[in-house]
Amino acid sequence: MTTLSDLPVPTSSADLPPVERRPAIPAGFKAGGLAAGIKASGRPDLAVVCTTTGPAAVAAVFTPNTFAAAPVRLSKAHLAATSGDARGGFGWAGAVISTSGSANAATGPAGDSDQAEIAAMLARATGVEVELTLHLSTGVIGTRLPLGKVAAGLAALVPTLEATDDALLAAAVALRTTDSKTKVASTTVALPDDDGRPATVTVCGIAKGVGMIHPRMATMLAVVLTDASVAPEVLWGLLRPAAARTWNQLSVDGDTSTNDTVFVLASGAAGAEPVGAGSAAAVALGAALEAVARDLARQQAADGEGATTLITASVTGARDDAEARAVARSVTSSSLVKAAAHGRDPNWGRIAGAAGNARLADAAVLEASGLPADEASVRAGTPAVLDPGTLRIAIAGHLVFDGTQGGPVAFDREAARAAMDAPELVLALDLGLGTGQGEAFGCDLTESYVIENSEYTT
Amino acid sequence: MTTLSDLPVPTSSADLPPVERRPAIPAGFKAGGLAAGIKASGRPDLAVVCTTTGPAAVAAVFTPNTFAAAPVRLSKAHLAATSGDARGGFGWAGAVISTSGSANAATGPAGDSDQAEIAAMLARATGVEVELTLHLSTGVIGTRLPLGKVAAGLAALVPTLEATDDALLAAAVALRTTDSKTKVASTTVALPDDDGRPATVTVCGIAKGVGMIHPRMATMLAVVLTDASVAPEVLWGLLRPAAARTWNQLSVDGDTSTNDTVFVLASGAAGAEPVGAGSAAAVALGAALEAVARDLARQQAADGEGATTLITASVTGARDDAEARAVARSVTSSSLVKAAAHGRDPNWGRIAGAAGNARLADAAVLEASGLPADEASVRAGTPAVLDPGTLRIAIAGHLVFDGTQGGPVAFDREAARAAMDAPELVLALDLGLGTGQGEAFGCDLTESYVIENSEYTT
Repeated sequence: MTTLSDLPVPTSSADLPPVERRPAIPAGFKAGGLAAGIKASGRPDLAVVCTTTGPAAVAAVFTPNTFAAAPVRLSKAHLAATSGDARGGFGWAGAVISTSGSANAATGPAGDSDQAEIAAMLARATGVEVELTLHLSTGVIGTRLPLGKVAAGLAALVPTLEATDDALLAAAVALRTTDSKTKVASTTVALPDDDGRPATVTVCGIAKGVGMIHPRMATMLAVVLTDASVAPEVLWGLLRPAAARTWNQLSVDGDTSTNDTVFVLASGAAGAEPVGAGSAAAVALGAALEAVARDLARQQAADGEGATTLITASVTGARDDAEARAVARSVTSSSLVKAAAHGRDPNWGRIAGAAGNARLADAAVLEASGLPADEASVRAGTPAVLDPGTLRIAIAGHLVFDGTQGGPVAFDREAARAAMDAPELVLALDLGLGTGQGEAFGCDLTESYVIENSEYTT
Repeated sequence: MTTLSDLPVPTSSADLPPVERRPAIPAGFKAGGLAAGIKASGRPDLAVVCTTTGPAAVAAVFTPNTFAAAPVRLSKAHLAATSGDARGGFGWAGAVISTSGSANAATGPAGDSDQAEIAAMLARATGVEVELTLHLSTGVIGTRLPLGKVAAGLAALVPTLEATDDALLAAAVALRTTDSKTKVASTTVALPDDDGRPATVTVCGIAKGVGMIHPRMATMLAVVLTDASVAPEVLWGLLRPAAARTWNQLSVDGDTSTNDTVFVLASGAAGAEPVGAGSAAAVALGAALEAVARDLARQQAADGEGATTLITASVTGARDDAEARAVARSVTSSSLVKAAAHGRDPNWGRIAGAAGNARLADAAVLEASGLPADEASVRAGTPAVLDPGTLRIAIAGHLVFDGTQGGPVAFDREAARAAMDAPELVLALDLGLGTGQGEAFGCDLTESYVIENSEYTT
């Protein structure tokens, strides 16, 4: 039996600070969540996060879906208004609201009007200006939000917001739709300043769902809080590449919802110096942000509908990182690889086939990951370069294909199958062409996914 | 209840000649198939088609997968050699062999050597030159072809080849791997000549499978025969756009195999004048070719693994055909739409969401469909333009969303559900932006797909 011990491990994740899966509310924020009755189930469905020390700097990533939901469009407009930058990717905010149970997507002008009314309610309840409110929503597409219930919920919730870990956990619980688990990740990092006096800041994220994982239920949402001090555009410059390496590498079923949103809010309340663009502090804060994003993405993949295992594709030896990420994403997105993972079948032919189909991300994602705009435009959607003669593939630590040795490798199929039967299945591919590396996250495809998504719902 | 009667029907399919699902071997060909023992099941697994009047003009479309199988690479090399055109898309051939049961993919230099040996065997058995042989294979990835069985099979089969419809049907049966049905389509068309004396030619295609639809089984294959007289490069110019509108719009599970191949062979034996590029005869022959390709693609989609219904997405009102095809393909490729179709759930939110994610095909496909190379390069992978305010969606004839009326439309859910329970489910989208139109074909996602693809196979 040949093992994977000689295949390299990508350093991208190893360079990130460790995270814990517990809430750690940064200074400058208060939060809370409760059941407002939007969901028929009576589960928590309304979450609010507010700043306590004035508006926070915000960076955001939104769904590219043409049918972006009303909360997405309103949040973009508010960020554009507070920053003066029409792209709507960064700005300032004092309050974030999340409603769960109705996506307020494909609801037309009435849905926009509803969301504007919610913004006014939130502004009144929290005392922040309307343009300093941000909006998240998730749930059934095409249904209106029950404004009366949201109003009553806000009246009950806002006075009870607390700057505690438990209160942030309550917000994370209320963010959920059909998630089987609450998703939280946090880390602390020392930011070096110009005088060599590092200040410790906290980065903590909460998230829900992934993809469109339930009948007419939508959306992956994340809110990341930090008490670092950083200007909105600098924060955006840290969020975009981190998201390109984490959330953009996440796939449950290939569908991108109308509501997908990530917000990062920086309060500055830790008292550290402002993080300058390109500084050592920016690198450290970016790594902390990426560590939290990566762990939330992994939690989301593992909680994919019907999933029994997290699939991590780890690619090394690509010509560059963009090609490595393309190959990783192609592998974790393949229905056949996902089904084979479910059957614990060390089916390397499907992995090679999926890798051979890899195409680079679209121009926006390539540019967000750091490629110059010209290069991103030229390379978007082009095939990733692979060579069967240099490719090596390992499944759960078992080398199964080695192009440098002519291809298929004899391996202990039963041992590989047993190794695949774990909460995380690592598929490692070394392309043998360069130093590019990347990873992607997905889950197995199960009968439960089909059954739950084909049930007729009224 | 509002019905779909007011939504336009794309004319692309209406402009095509009618096809029949029966074999009609064109003049100038003989064919046959038998069980050579490559498949453990003992089912037919070896097919040969030969010309009877000298080499035929050939056009081909091959998988873009980096791990193209040995038969794909050898066929490309032979076409390049006989045409002198390095692209390997057209040339001349006298014999086509198909082996089923082993894909001869990811088999390294040994696999290339095996395929070259098969080419030599086929040349000896049929009396054509080695470079005039074309190769198809399908089955398990990573296993070697049993050369002895192929040799014995060829010795038995070649002397029995016949220029009959039954013999072509036998070849179609031997093309199958796990297909539940044999796939054949034929049509006849009158080609106008310069003197106004139309000559009737036959176009008949056989095909197998679609996508990678079985554990470690691969490949969609098609061989189309015609007795028209047409130069290889002209034939290629007809095949590429036809394939872009049909086979490139076909999706079962989003995976593209290592072996996908379409061959079109034109014997010229009908005695008609050569078809000139851009002539009226070329338009007529192209339509016949596309009609056969479209029907084979529909048969392949309907026979997707575990499928209970063919899903046809019919898009009108796009800014151009490329965007219409992108939207159609995005809808039929969505796991959530496919699962909803299985549950007969008129879930228009998923259709809107999938449409909103539509991105144009890659540059090669756009160029094949007729876009200038510059434009194809710029537009590849970019989002298709949609406007929620002009979009209309109908499911199985029931209008469910009308952006011009504010969005969701009241409809009879039970009636829509009943209408969805049919062998073909038509999802119609009118984008309301222009005159572009296109269609795509897929199938529902079922528990059977997952079960069959996750079973451990030895």
